[in-house]
Amino acid sequence: MAGIDAFLVVSEKNMRYLAGFSTLSLERFAGMVIPVGKGVPTVIVPKLEETKAKEKSMFKEIKTYSDSESPALLFKKVIRELGLEKATFGVEGTLPFRFYRMLTAASPKTKAIDVSSLFSQLRCIKSEEELQLIEKAADLVAEGIKVGIEFTKPGVTELAISFRIDREIKESGGDSIPFCLVLSGENSALPHGETSNRKVREKDVVLMDVGAVYQGYYGDLTRTIFVGKSTREEKEIYDVVAEAHEAAIRSVKPGVRAEEVDAAARNVIKDAGYGEHFTHRTGHGLGLEVHEEPYIAQNNKITLKTGMAFTIEPGIYFFGKFGVRIEDDIAVSQTNGRMLSHMPKEQAIV
Amino acid sequence: MAGIDAFLVVSEKNMRYLAGFSTLSLERFAGMVIPVGKGVPTVIVPKLEETKAKEKSMFKEIKTYSDSESPALLFKKVIRELGLEKATFGVEGTLPFRFYRMLTAASPKTKAIDVSSLFSQLRCIKSEEELQLIEKAADLVAEGIKVGIEFTKPGVTELAISFRIDREIKESGGDSIPFCLVLSGENSALPHGETSNRKVREKDVVLMDVGAVYQGYYGDLTRTIFVGKSTREEKEIYDVVAEAHEAAIRSVKPGVRAEEVDAAARNVIKDAGYGEHFTHRTGHGLGLEVHEEPYIAQNNKITLKTGMAFTIEPGIYFFGKFGVRIEDDIAVSQTNGRMLSHMPKEQAIV
Repeated sequence: MAGIDAFLVVSEKNMRYLAGFSTLSLERFAGMVIPVGKGVPTVIVPKLEETKAKEKSMFKEIKTYSDSESPALLFKKVIRELGLEKATFGVEGTLPFRFYRMLTAASPKTKAIDVSSLFSQLRCIKSEEELQLIEKAADLVAEGIKVGIEFTKPGVTELAISFRIDREIKESGGDSIPFCLVLSGENSALPHGETSNRKVREKDVVLMDVGAVYQGYYGDLTRTIFVGKSTREEKEIYDVVAEAHEAAIRSVKPGVRAEEVDAAARNVIKDAGYGEHFTHRTGHGLGLEVHEEPYIAQNNKITLKTGMAFTIEPGIYFFGKFGVRIEDDIAVSQTNGRMLSHMPKEQAIV
Repeated sequence: MAGIDAFLVVSEKNMRYLAGFSTLSLERFAGMVIPVGKGVPTVIVPKLEETKAKEKSMFKEIKTYSDSESPALLFKKVIRELGLEKATFGVEGTLPFRFYRMLTAASPKTKAIDVSSLFSQLRCIKSEEELQLIEKAADLVAEGIKVGIEFTKPGVTELAISFRIDREIKESGGDSIPFCLVLSGENSALPHGETSNRKVREKDVVLMDVGAVYQGYYGDLTRTIFVGKSTREEKEIYDVVAEAHEAAIRSVKPGVRAEEVDAAARNVIKDAGYGEHFTHRTGHGLGLEVHEEPYIAQNNKITLKTGMAFTIEPGIYFFGKFGVRIEDDIAVSQTNGRMLSHMPKEQAIV
């Protein structure tokens, strides 16, 4: 990047992306100095993280400090050894002030520029290994939703279904389940509703939107089911959403713009006459964060490239009545789209 | 604070502590400028947070910006109106670089000093309202552990007990349950063990350490129980831990140093001959964070003051065999200690 002599990276997610290794930099400083051009990337971690760093970090120059030593002094030494005393550093917008001060204290002639957007551009292209982790996370979510669907019947609360899903995913090896929404009846019409003590009733629509993390990577799926029976209107809406979902998936290939994938889904829903009831974007990038580029949204002109991964999740909502959303995870392959989630999406009545 | 003209506060927890209102400052800037001496504290939030801010913030000067306006420009205007163009700002060590840059861009003549330790000193004294929130959180945890104990029997896994506790607390109104440790048999000897699929067995020791958040505030309790029966040794160890726990509670009053409370517990355990098996500090401060000052630890000379709140949690661990820990939450009253958690601590056999 023009004008940047080195990068200083301290966020857990960017360290993980760049070096395959990360550690939370809270009280104790942990970070990486990555010179552009000459010099070797150097990892600075507390002594107690040394073993983990040596084992996992792709950057092999690892410097440590003990609890009785100063990370600031070590940092200063690294800056000097790498000849970066007058360097312009690319830093993260989230860099905590105390670590920024460590940089200026190490050498008052350094400069810092926020290069967050560069990191997000890098991170939205996934490696095969990353895609497989997303796929595994999506498999865990699918398994959880499957169990949640089996558990659903009149009289069971949304929270109870949510706990069942949460438990299934944790027992199957999920690191965490940052959200596990179960919305029934008129609640299903709220794209940002909250799981409640409401009991599922006969003839309800039930929407489950679940995100789980596996080895740092997110999977995110939504399924909508019917309890006992569905009305003609509900069936029709479900078919429209499924068709929009399919159209968006078919439109995915390298070179297409994100807004075109959004339009593929949106046009199906508009043509069916429900345009104003699709009140959100079609999807969002997925990886170490659950919302990142590429956003599959109107006016997002970013060009899809091989290795990008995102959700496809059109929905139609009738406030006070019901809503339907179907969400899957997909990556851009060399030629088209490659599904990362593998779960049936036919209408299901339980 | 000497040399500080104003404070810039953007962290959710410090905003909440100072103004009773907070909002996550992630993509969109949200923060408070608090002049020292003259000028009124000013809250800057995105337009969509205006209603919440007006309703909840104790600082009534609220400035907002819409999605099409620049927070940086608004910030600059506030700095000018408050006459802080050449001010020295006290900032948080966690202040993100992009917001620090907003400050220097608003006025290049401002200076910034990390005053994190001042904020943590302020925050460790709790108001009556805060103490009641901790008490409520502790009640939720106690109720959860009670249900977990009832649920415990041979053949049930640690994870299943943990899920039962988690569910109980969420259904009773807990915001979140950041940790819910259930350690059985030899796992109970690991102060930082992880809840596993291990099934509880007859004659096991089972340790439950649970933290829950209520309206932002933490409660944190531990109970250790016996399954079917306890050995003479286990009974004796339990009594020693309970006595140490009681001694620490009795030692709490304004003017005492944190290390003295630690010593009160530690001496009981030492005198019983188990000093080397009490491998951690006696407690930690509790509030908007689960670990904060005052740390009830050896060599912590901080003087306890009315309104401080912390845990008392001595333990004795025999690696490969079993461990016992009893943890309650307490505040410093005008005269002595005031329990914030209210749960029986007699030996229990299920």
